[in-house]
Amino acid sequence: MSFNTFGHMFRMTTFGESHGVAIGCVVDGCPPGISLTARDIQVYLDKRKPGQSRFTTQRREPDEVRILSGVFEDDATDGQVTTGTPIGLLIENVDQRSKDYTEIRDKFRPGHADYTYQAKYGVRDYRGGGRSSARETAARVAAGAIARKVIPDVSIRGALVQIGPHRIDRKNWNWSEVERNPFFTPDAKAAAVWEDYLDDVRKRGSSCGAVVEVVASGVPAGWGAPVYGKLDQDLASGLMSINAVKGVEIGAGFGVAALSGEENADQIRMRHGKPEFLSNHAGGILGGISSGQDIVVRFAVKPTSSILQPRNTVTKQGEDAEISTKGRHDPCVGIRAVPVGEAMVALVLADHFLRHRGQTG
Amino acid sequence: MSFNTFGHMFRMTTFGESHGVAIGCVVDGCPPGISLTARDIQVYLDKRKPGQSRFTTQRREPDEVRILSGVFEDDATDGQVTTGTPIGLLIENVDQRSKDYTEIRDKFRPGHADYTYQAKYGVRDYRGGGRSSARETAARVAAGAIARKVIPDVSIRGALVQIGPHRIDRKNWNWSEVERNPFFTPDAKAAAVWEDYLDDVRKRGSSCGAVVEVVASGVPAGWGAPVYGKLDQDLASGLMSINAVKGVEIGAGFGVAALSGEENADQIRMRHGKPEFLSNHAGGILGGISSGQDIVVRFAVKPTSSILQPRNTVTKQGEDAEISTKGRHDPCVGIRAVPVGEAMVALVLADHFLRHRGQTG
Amino acid sequence: MSFNTFGHMFRMTTFGESHGVAIGCVVDGCPPGISLTARDIQVYLDKRKPGQSRFTTQRREPDEVRILSGVFEDDATDGQVTTGTPIGLLIENVDQRSKDYTEIRDKFRPGHADYTYQAKYGVRDYRGGGRSSARETAARVAAGAIARKVIPDVSIRGALVQIGPHRIDRKNWNWSEVERNPFFTPDAKAAAVWEDYLDDVRKRGSSCGAVVEVVASGVPAGWGAPVYGKLDQDLASGLMSINAVKGVEIGAGFGVAALSGEENADQIRMRHGKPEFLSNHAGGILGGISSGQDIVVRFAVKPTSSILQPRNTVTKQGEDAEISTKGRHDPCVGIRAVPVGEAMVALVLADHFLRHRGQTG
Amino acid sequence: MSFNTFGHMFRMTTFGESHGVAIGCVVDGCPPGISLTARDIQVYLDKRKPGQSRFTTQRREPDEVRILSGVFEDDATDGQVTTGTPIGLLIENVDQRSKDYTEIRDKFRPGHADYTYQAKYGVRDYRGGGRSSARETAARVAAGAIARKVIPDVSIRGALVQIGPHRIDRKNWNWSEVERNPFFTPDAKAAAVWEDYLDDVRKRGSSCGAVVEVVASGVPAGWGAPVYGKLDQDLASGLMSINAVKGVEIGAGFGVAALSGEENADQIRMRHGKPEFLSNHAGGILGGISSGQDIVVRFAVKPTSSILQPRNTVTKQGEDAEISTKGRHDPCVGIRAVPVGEAMVALVLADHFLRHRGQTG
Repeated sequence: MSFNTFGHMFRMTTFGESHGVAIGCVVDGCPPGISLTARDIQVYLDKRKPGQSRFTTQRREPDEVRILSGVFEDDATDGQVTTGTPIGLLIENVDQRSKDYTEIRDKFRPGHADYTYQAKYGVRDYRGGGRSSARETAARVAAGAIARKVIPDVSIRGALVQIGPHRIDRKNWNWSEVERNPFFTPDAKAAAVWEDYLDDVRKRGSSCGAVVEVVASGVPAGWGAPVYGKLDQDLASGLMSINAVKGVEIGAGFGVAALSGEENADQIRMRHGKPEFLSNHAGGILGGISSGQDIVVRFAVKPTSSILQPRNTVTKQGEDAEISTKGRHDPCVGIRAVPVGEAMVALVLADHFLRHRGQTG
Repeated sequence: MSFNTFGHMFRMTTFGESHGVAIGCVVDGCPPGISLTARDIQVYLDKRKPGQSRFTTQRREPDEVRILSGVFEDDATDGQVTTGTPIGLLIENVDQRSKDYTEIRDKFRPGHADYTYQAKYGVRDYRGGGRSSARETAARVAAGAIARKVIPDVSIRGALVQIGPHRIDRKNWNWSEVERNPFFTPDAKAAAVWEDYLDDVRKRGSSCGAVVEVVASGVPAGWGAPVYGKLDQDLASGLMSINAVKGVEIGAGFGVAALSGEENADQIRMRHGKPEFLSNHAGGILGGISSGQDIVVRFAVKPTSSILQPRNTVTKQGEDAEISTKGRHDPCVGIRAVPVGEAMVALVLADHFLRHRGQTG
Repeated sequence: MSFNTFGHMFRMTTFGESHGVAIGCVVDGCPPGISLTARDIQVYLDKRKPGQSRFTTQRREPDEVRILSGVFEDDATDGQVTTGTPIGLLIENVDQRSKDYTEIRDKFRPGHADYTYQAKYGVRDYRGGGRSSARETAARVAAGAIARKVIPDVSIRGALVQIGPHRIDRKNWNWSEVERNPFFTPDAKAAAVWEDYLDDVRKRGSSCGAVVEVVASGVPAGWGAPVYGKLDQDLASGLMSINAVKGVEIGAGFGVAALSGEENADQIRMRHGKPEFLSNHAGGILGGISSGQDIVVRFAVKPTSSILQPRNTVTKQGEDAEISTKGRHDPCVGIRAVPVGEAMVALVLADHFLRHRGQTG
Repeated sequence: MSFNTFGHMFRMTTFGESHGVAIGCVVDGCPPGISLTARDIQVYLDKRKPGQSRFTTQRREPDEVRILSGVFEDDATDGQVTTGTPIGLLIENVDQRSKDYTEIRDKFRPGHADYTYQAKYGVRDYRGGGRSSARETAARVAAGAIARKVIPDVSIRGALVQIGPHRIDRKNWNWSEVERNPFFTPDAKAAAVWEDYLDDVRKRGSSCGAVVEVVASGVPAGWGAPVYGKLDQDLASGLMSINAVKGVEIGAGFGVAALSGEENADQIRMRHGKPEFLSNHAGGILGGISSGQDIVVRFAVKPTSSILQPRNTVTKQGEDAEISTKGRHDPCVGIRAVPVGEAMVALVLADHFLRHRGQTG
């Protein structure tokens, strides 16, 4: 969790810029003997891929992943398995239009990292945001697909629960709806409302924010590590590292402020010979360690900063200027953030599974 | 940021349980030549110390810190300075009453980490929560005091902005009020309301949650590191690692969901020869790198789980039981979380200052 | 393995200067449920303690260790066990004579770290070498005692195999001799020769170097991790970090240069149903991973730089000077390096055991 | 320095197997604004490339490196510079002959990591040694070329100082000879002797060991970090991680055992207004920190284990067997280890430069 590496025992190191030669990552620390082909990874990349509906960017990026290392034929099964050595993954950038970058070369786009990268490094790859582009998240999704296979008993599912001011009605929650609408939302009624809302946003050349919820079921009690390797801490770290994310919460989240101790602390009873919690305000984590309940996290995604309307900015040379972004942009980046959020949760959990197994056997 | 160590270049490793011999920490990577005495640290510990008002626990813990290593006399100034070697800090636990721990030895307190520690380790120091006690945060505050001295041009101030359902009115914000009320709140009017509210909560043996805001001024543009060492990511990690914290947000935070791109993206103009942002929805961070604006973070603290009212739970032996917590507890742990939040922000910023200086000179 | 922390899953962070208040360390990542008392640690500290014979310094340092945290009573056994949380260890410095440090305050002792610490930090605790003193190794020995308990099936034994130009005769190797002479040597005949040799060195106010060998038996095949977490790499790192060490070798070590491939590569045969190596030039490690054979490492310790004879040096103020060291110094620091070398090997192996278990189950 | 990542501030993560699709690495933490093209890297890869003389393997591997990310055009110079973001490097494996691997699929080659990888992971890519192949060192050399550019004032030069039993005569040392013979040796006379010796070794289908020395000039006093981030410790770690290395020493190395304190401790005098050491037994490092003298390290490389003569071994199935290695192997891998050793020294020094700058400014 430093520089471009995420995780301790199960680690991902990513590289690549939006309009460079390629992006990719190295997944290190993966247990050996896990069945793995490019197909297993591609499934998740396809969920994140641009152009899946009119509500995401129309950029064409096939995002085909190649496994460069770390897998080999398994005598026992005749299939391909991980070898325990680093898994190199490569996704070539094929849609690098030779476009005119003059506008963004010298002007800092408000809400983007243009100004801060320039301030930090004195040089930046401005094409499509370079390293700060959300394109990097494809590498996370690819690594996350492998992480899932490390913890096969854990199910990790993400859902969009708010777009703009419109929240879902939790009473309508139906996981199977998530696959049936372009928003990854479990509330079919919300999907209908959002469709109109987002069409309007898109037509106005504007954008809107969103809130994503990710639920991990099947995590046993005991994962996590006090006091600076807490499970919720690493989830917060992982989710906050996603582009455009401005808030992360666990369980009842910011809502806890208004709760009393009686309301908030989840009571416990024995059920079928084991402890069962009567509610889940904790979001499945107590003292940084999983409790065996569902782990529930939410994160807020800001509206795309690339909008049509002209905005005030300054140039690299220190002059006032205006900028408006034409072209193919997601009106709500929160949608495609759903598979990315799932991937980060998978990476954190796989890492903590290995760490827990290391320390406690 | 793993196990009991926080930070990369400027690192803190803490140890100790609530009712053990002592707690403490090792601060590693501190630059040499910084003036430092126990007094400099004690000032911040005293802010966090229990028993400062009727709204915090009446436990008596003098929390006197000793510096065990890492400082030495400076020829030039005749004062004591850091030597660049690890600074050992020790705080002895003096109020370890030989009390009766029977109740919590076998019963898992709802909302506490009793059950999860037991599930993970098979053994736990149950006295006062052991390692999972918020007492550990004294070590953070001590290390944070040193971190502040590493970045003397940065001012880090925390404030309580919500208690239970009562938020402050931001129009009343006055930093100098923070020192004048027992809540560290900048809104004198809110303080008056909270006093009544919290008296009531306390008398009922209940508890309530809170929201803390920390503002760091004076951070230059350029601190932070893409893409897994983002400044906001490390702030989220650090703040979420504080006991009872269930949510963290930066700038406009969860509010971004309901904003449009036009509203959210902070425009820029040249002022006095340098770029100035016209608003601060970003909370001072773009693409994980500081923008030169104030860094603004908030975190939600859950209500104390130690309450009078009897609650359902189970025993270590697997039987249903009831538990109620008597004794000296904070009705709102959010209050004493203010200096802890400041300390974590200081630690993250000092670390990123050194990392930035390392990479870019 | 950065700054003052050693290890990944099983980690030790040390602090303290030679003549400061105290030295100590935090041992993090220790598995829970391991029986541990201060007595278990003290045994190894006593092996390293000064003043055990006329061949080590006559400084009086009782080196009594206190456990500050990380252990608790165990219901099952009624004994004290590790809890999985950080173990704080403290050793107070009791023999800090208020001596006159004028001589070394301004003069850089040749062969010591005085000049380099001053060059790096601009300030240094010159009393007894401060942080660069071998006194820090007491913390390693304490942590190493805990590491041993993490891998109870592994036996780690050190031995002195060379003092000055005098090597042992390997035909005389008898582990039980190690306890019977003041040199930790397995060759009783060498011990007799060394006694005279070292008496002479000591009387002349000179000093001599040594070579230490550490053998770890019982390590199963499979510990270690390619390619930058190799077992031999981490052993080299750990041993080279010991004060005064200038060389480390594994198995046949530097001798491999003169061997042919036929001589060097250890052949394998099946014995009692499992592979057995017919020789051990590899020192128990192939490709960075343990082979199940004894792990054999050696390290060279330079002669004490604190000698009576006057030496040329310079002052902090940039003037030529002379210095000679009176007082209580080890004529051969290699002797007391034996328990330190054992401790570092124990720390590396415990760490790799947990890492291996984490990745492969 | 864990798993497949090396370094702290300046980090390299490598991936890839000998006969897989490709090998490569991600270089992270590189300062921005450093001029860098593939050409700068290729120069060093060409030094390590097989088939440069009859004394190295005749395998054909063009080892052409591609930069995938982390560089961009620089306005000021019109050249390509590093951007501070991760530099992805890729080298495709073009000489993966579809050969018959039956022999090594089931038999463990003595002296190789076949048995230990199988024991650890239960599966291994046996083709050409897979991940344990020295082919991985191409990625190190590539990363090392970038490291050199981070510390342009430091000159890092390697030399072969022993082949089999034949050492160079240090009186003949002439750096410019290194480029003129196929052994990277500074002693022209030794080169003549070695030529005959190695021809004989090669014709017999045998192999021999070697010792490599690397000297870094121009390192200022102050790099390195006590006590587990010592410069010599990290050099030992880096060099011991190279395939086939069995020993590492600094300065006088194992020779210190036979020295007296008077002989060993390097005296100091003022020269031209600054301290100058009168000898360099320390190899440029005192207390883990550079002294400003040349840094001198040596490492021993074992003889290639792939030899013609039949050797005893066992099969994966647990049966006794014989194996002999035909085909294209280096009779003395120590030769091609020279540029690899230089690269590791460059990586350690670049990392420590950034770490030192981070802590002390």
